[in-house]
Amino acid sequence: MDEFEFIREMLAPLSIGAPGARGLGDDAATIVPRAGHELVVTADTVIGGVHFREEDAPGLVARKALRVNLSDLAAKGAVPIGFLMCLSIPRGTDKAWLRAFTTDLGDDINVYGLPLLGGDTVSTPGPLTISITALGEVPTGEMLTRSGAKPGDAICVTGTIGDAALGLDFLRNKDSGEATTAGRDHAVDRYLLPQPRLKVGFAIRHLASASLDISDGLVGDIGHVCEQSKVGATIERSQIPLSPTMRKAIQDDDKAWRHVFGGGDDYEIAFTVPPGRIAEIQGIARTTGTPITVIGGVNDGNSVRVVDESGGSVPVLHSGYRHL
Amino acid sequence: MDEFEFIREMLAPLSIGAPGARGLGDDAATIVPRAGHELVVTADTVIGGVHFREEDAPGLVARKALRVNLSDLAAKGAVPIGFLMCLSIPRGTDKAWLRAFTTDLGDDINVYGLPLLGGDTVSTPGPLTISITALGEVPTGEMLTRSGAKPGDAICVTGTIGDAALGLDFLRNKDSGEATTAGRDHAVDRYLLPQPRLKVGFAIRHLASASLDISDGLVGDIGHVCEQSKVGATIERSQIPLSPTMRKAIQDDDKAWRHVFGGGDDYEIAFTVPPGRIAEIQGIARTTGTPITVIGGVNDGNSVRVVDESGGSVPVLHSGYRHL
Repeated sequence: MDEFEFIREMLAPLSIGAPGARGLGDDAATIVPRAGHELVVTADTVIGGVHFREEDAPGLVARKALRVNLSDLAAKGAVPIGFLMCLSIPRGTDKAWLRAFTTDLGDDINVYGLPLLGGDTVSTPGPLTISITALGEVPTGEMLTRSGAKPGDAICVTGTIGDAALGLDFLRNKDSGEATTAGRDHAVDRYLLPQPRLKVGFAIRHLASASLDISDGLVGDIGHVCEQSKVGATIERSQIPLSPTMRKAIQDDDKAWRHVFGGGDDYEIAFTVPPGRIAEIQGIARTTGTPITVIGGVNDGNSVRVVDESGGSVPVLHSGYRHL
Repeated sequence: MDEFEFIREMLAPLSIGAPGARGLGDDAATIVPRAGHELVVTADTVIGGVHFREEDAPGLVARKALRVNLSDLAAKGAVPIGFLMCLSIPRGTDKAWLRAFTTDLGDDINVYGLPLLGGDTVSTPGPLTISITALGEVPTGEMLTRSGAKPGDAICVTGTIGDAALGLDFLRNKDSGEATTAGRDHAVDRYLLPQPRLKVGFAIRHLASASLDISDGLVGDIGHVCEQSKVGATIERSQIPLSPTMRKAIQDDDKAWRHVFGGGDDYEIAFTVPPGRIAEIQGIARTTGTPITVIGGVNDGNSVRVVDESGGSVPVLHSGYRHL
């Protein structure tokens, strides 16, 4: 099928709900944030063979490409309002693949309420490459940033850490060690389909001093907060929330800690909060149904230290992804 | 060099001028259109070996990637305010290449006044792929669209048509036929470095009934206007503005008309205007220093016809690119 058929048949229906998208029949879309709000813009690329496996189901690929961007909006406390998608499609990709990709993308568009506003579709001699620019909005001046953490703040994370990297390991090695089938499936799902923490991000907007999503690895990402906030951080290893599967993997082999410290793709939120606000954070955990755990504290240093139960430093060999 | 060094050293300086970009040190940027304005968003991808040649100078690649997006904003009558860039960089790309790419991109950022707001940088096993989302603004409700052309309107184009495709032909065949060196260089420059018609687009905002940029080919793009406006169009072949080099190429070989009818990459603006406003259009041509030529008219049909001096239909074999 050619570009124009693809747009008309499969992409244009994804723009319903955004009159400014003009049914994808124009060169550009118009959009305006609500009064008193500003736009939050973020962009992420995923590539076949790098960020997902080429054999992954087209619908999972589409939803992951969108959700990694939603995760950024979540961490910023923004409400999603639309996105643009640049698709570079390998030659010979068939119509059934494109149909599955766009149908499942449409499901997520409905769940998260952000229509497709535009983009570009081209053919590539390389792997499938999806670059999405997501737009959200926040009340003017209220976007959560990486730069507001203060010594004394508590460091919190949502959900459990390291599962996605463990899941990828299971997929690659086809050996899940001691993991149960359910445990394996849980970890694999975490890798294939992130759950952007939009409710938590929205709820902590007036409480958190700094926030970001964990996409590169826990220690590396906390390091980004430290760099931008000009502070240090101590993470208590024993406090990091782990799934039963991850606990088993660590019992099995101590090296599995690398997934916890440096595994990418968790798409949980890490945030800092003044110590007096922790009770409110626990309330948010209850109302959103999302586990939130205090894993350490901000200090006046300039690096991230992971400590064990006796307070000794734990060596972190792989602290996060560096993409080039 | 790794991703974070690249961002800090080479990309962050390109965000100066946009406080909402936070020096590219966060997950997202904030931006808000001026009061009474809405955002215009558009995205385009260019790929090495497809939209530019892999041997093209890095600075030209960067500027073309940005300018094809600026051309869309121009055709919509929008003023550029910023952009996001997703870069998928082949493994082993060296620092000197990245330096040249970002330095020359910085020149265009200064010329066009749109800072880098964010994006993503990843390594790819495929060709260099650059997806840019450009943001502009227009007074609310005033974006030029493809859908307002009315029977009786004149069809206008800026500049000259077909040169970019001819230039690509010269580059590919290394045979420029009867073209002079200056003529060859002109055509090649047109291919390598588009000149987005921002001044014209801004000036025609209250005059044009429909507008788009010529990126796929003249006949195909006029066809897009016809489709969205539910009208037909007649283009007078003898009125299409041609450079001396293109005239020579056609004298040489009649087949060169294909570059005029269906060559991509011109990035001129095609627009329609009520007949009573043509004098004002001529004034805009003078004040912007940009040739604008009436090449035909809109009718109540449903297709694009190209006619010769005697009014007979000219067959158009290749009317434009279809990208998949």
